[in-house]
Amino acid sequence: MIDQSTICAISTAAGHGAIAIIRLSGENALTICDKIFQSKGNKVLSEQKANTVHFGNLMDGEEIVDEVLVTVFKAPYSYTGENSAEIACHGAPYIQQRILQVLLKSGARMANPGEYTQRAFLNGKMDLSQAEAVADLIASSSASAHKVALQQMRGGFSNEIANLRGRLLHFISMIELELDFGEEDVEFADRTQLQALVNEIETIINKLVNSFELGNAIKNGVPVAIVGNTNVGKSTLLNALLKEDKAIVSDIEGTTRDVIEDTINLGGVTFRFIDTAGIRTTLDKIENMGIERTFQKMRQAQIVMLLIDANRPVEMLNESIIKVNDIIDRDQQKLIVCLNKIDLCKDTEALSKQLIGLNGEDKLMFISAKEQTHTDELASELLKVVNMDTINEQDVIVTNARHFEALNSARGSIQRVNDGLLNMIPTDFLAQDIRECLHFLGEITGDISTDEVLGNIFKNFCIGK
Amino acid sequence: MIDQSTICAISTAAGHGAIAIIRLSGENALTICDKIFQSKGNKVLSEQKANTVHFGNLMDGEEIVDEVLVTVFKAPYSYTGENSAEIACHGAPYIQQRILQVLLKSGARMANPGEYTQRAFLNGKMDLSQAEAVADLIASSSASAHKVALQQMRGGFSNEIANLRGRLLHFISMIELELDFGEEDVEFADRTQLQALVNEIETIINKLVNSFELGNAIKNGVPVAIVGNTNVGKSTLLNALLKEDKAIVSDIEGTTRDVIEDTINLGGVTFRFIDTAGIRTTLDKIENMGIERTFQKMRQAQIVMLLIDANRPVEMLNESIIKVNDIIDRDQQKLIVCLNKIDLCKDTEALSKQLIGLNGEDKLMFISAKEQTHTDELASELLKVVNMDTINEQDVIVTNARHFEALNSARGSIQRVNDGLLNMIPTDFLAQDIRECLHFLGEITGDISTDEVLGNIFKNFCIGK
Repeated sequence: MIDQSTICAISTAAGHGAIAIIRLSGENALTICDKIFQSKGNKVLSEQKANTVHFGNLMDGEEIVDEVLVTVFKAPYSYTGENSAEIACHGAPYIQQRILQVLLKSGARMANPGEYTQRAFLNGKMDLSQAEAVADLIASSSASAHKVALQQMRGGFSNEIANLRGRLLHFISMIELELDFGEEDVEFADRTQLQALVNEIETIINKLVNSFELGNAIKNGVPVAIVGNTNVGKSTLLNALLKEDKAIVSDIEGTTRDVIEDTINLGGVTFRFIDTAGIRTTLDKIENMGIERTFQKMRQAQIVMLLIDANRPVEMLNESIIKVNDIIDRDQQKLIVCLNKIDLCKDTEALSKQLIGLNGEDKLMFISAKEQTHTDELASELLKVVNMDTINEQDVIVTNARHFEALNSARGSIQRVNDGLLNMIPTDFLAQDIRECLHFLGEITGDISTDEVLGNIFKNFCIGK
Repeated sequence: MIDQSTICAISTAAGHGAIAIIRLSGENALTICDKIFQSKGNKVLSEQKANTVHFGNLMDGEEIVDEVLVTVFKAPYSYTGENSAEIACHGAPYIQQRILQVLLKSGARMANPGEYTQRAFLNGKMDLSQAEAVADLIASSSASAHKVALQQMRGGFSNEIANLRGRLLHFISMIELELDFGEEDVEFADRTQLQALVNEIETIINKLVNSFELGNAIKNGVPVAIVGNTNVGKSTLLNALLKEDKAIVSDIEGTTRDVIEDTINLGGVTFRFIDTAGIRTTLDKIENMGIERTFQKMRQAQIVMLLIDANRPVEMLNESIIKVNDIIDRDQQKLIVCLNKIDLCKDTEALSKQLIGLNGEDKLMFISAKEQTHTDELASELLKVVNMDTINEQDVIVTNARHFEALNSARGSIQRVNDGLLNMIPTDFLAQDIRECLHFLGEITGDISTDEVLGNIFKNFCIGK
């Protein structure tokens, strides 16, 4: 049973703006507005046509709080599916607070985080994965994050799931019919067709599960650890990639004692560059703490970028490469070795032949951070690691950890169904596995949901959405 | 000639919100929207009724940027008086920027600060003092600042000016007629009536000019310097007035080395409490710098609150009072002497008799900041100084320095008119002074304005208003 109370909240960003929007939703949204709205022609908002805008005074008793525009929405044609109003007022925080107070006095209550979107979900205006995408869309800060969130909000993801689930539901009803007939050994569900569907589902789920690594990188940014001895030009490289002066560049050894993280968009993808302390051995206690952090950060990064001064003796370079190789996880992490300061070094060809310890998968690049030589190529190399160009416009990408988990569980069930079909296990076991798969797929779209799950999802929304 | 180009800007506060509003205004506002808006029924926005809202996709070529609501306003029934559109999109800064880019590509240009309001003024939707009040309203952060800004925006101020100016205009036209008849010594303008009007104008201008001190306090907050020796409980008092822990409270002598300023609302008025370093003599260089600043801040404050430990020897108390008396300007500044820590002191009656150096206008209060004894009375006392209760609901208060200056000049002119009438100076001199007064009054409402004046006014607005 959906809460029928009328909720209100400031829906625009906090702070001073020219305009702010306060949203009301619920059965009495318009009648509450009527108590506090006064226009020239004494308009009654609840009697106005849907999707119209009205100018007037917002009153606190006899006092005018502000001149406002109120937009009237009527159930079910609103974001939440309920009667709704949007009050556009002058953007002073003081005025916004006053209007909220007046609304609370007049019978509305403060909305909980995400409650508008939760109501939209409960009223069937969107499924759960679409609702979750609303928050992702608002949080998106790169072209790729925006694109996948918008696609998910528009149902790209859940359409696929709902489609699979619908077809599987058809089979489970057939199979349950077989079980009803128990002893008679009838077969309503065509096993060949079921096998085909199960294969298809497994393929699609695999694709979706595999998309999560990329989806996660898109949503949260790709962590790149820049590692190298002090004074090798890490900060300069960061600046070259950032193309603006964000990091501190200095010639004093050991300047970058702490972990600096800077996010930048390259080709529509967010990279989180972690500029770490060097890995040289030192007696300085504080600096040693920094080095310990470097190791930690290196292990957490998806890409480790080893930056070495190309003009140091080749033995030192090889030593660094070996050291990094010891720390990183070759299966999970990509290593890019950058030989920097090639503006001061003549024969890069000869040098590259002397380097040992490089794996076939590693990328070796000669750059000059200072002169910005090959730094654009380095940016392309980073993008290549993320594998963005292999995805298609229409590809559905999973970015949500909850979906990933449900898909993983669904994959387990569907694989058991597949095994069961091959080994011709009893129908009731088969039915059990299919039901499980249906359950996990239903969790994604919200066909199956608990208050706890909903609570966890919407508590992370902002108030006003 | 008003710029006919279509302007666009984000009108809601910067940052992440659930919703953001992007405003368009200008002749082509709706046709520009039509280029980038796609709805189910292929609605043409420029053909929709005024004051209606439409749901659809905002497109960048073939790509969907967001699902949006567009509100259609048609000239002259909009804020600016021009065709306008408000695009409500999801509140991600990335999306807001993308939509701005699409609008710029489609023929709009970025709005200058305050350009919407400037256009509203130029299109006769409001006068200049009303336009200025829009910015004040958005900046208002206390009940009183909000009230005077709203009153001014609703024309309370300019109606009064326009009324005076209109009546004076009538006389100047009569007087100019007299001048046209030159030699004939006719008198079209009734001098008795003129005298009466001039007296009325002078009275009203005087009232308005005098309201500026209060208006300025309302708009910018009342500066209160809290002065006293270290460890006397300044920070504790600040906390007691703030009723929350904002200042640092400490028992170490000289903790409050630097100037801390905290604004709080008491009874709808903003007070800027300046917690200064003590005024004791010290050898500590840094602390001496702090004391120098104390003196400066004391001289800038409207109220000086001397805080003394009631348990110190009475000679020390008197010494402090004398010291403060030396520094402050008795004509301009109000002194409140607070004897603190009365929870530790028995006989306040006897003590008050021993205090010397107090002026009749000074206020003596016995408080305990720690126990919050009489701190509410202190708050009332502060409010009394501001004189808020002497103003009437309907009183018009000048808060704007530009208006104050123009009113001062107008007062000068009208006084010369008055003198002229008394001394029966030649009509052409009289006319000159009346014209000057008309000019200055017209500056306030914007009947007289230059591009430079307008530029100065609107450059301080935010973009999007």
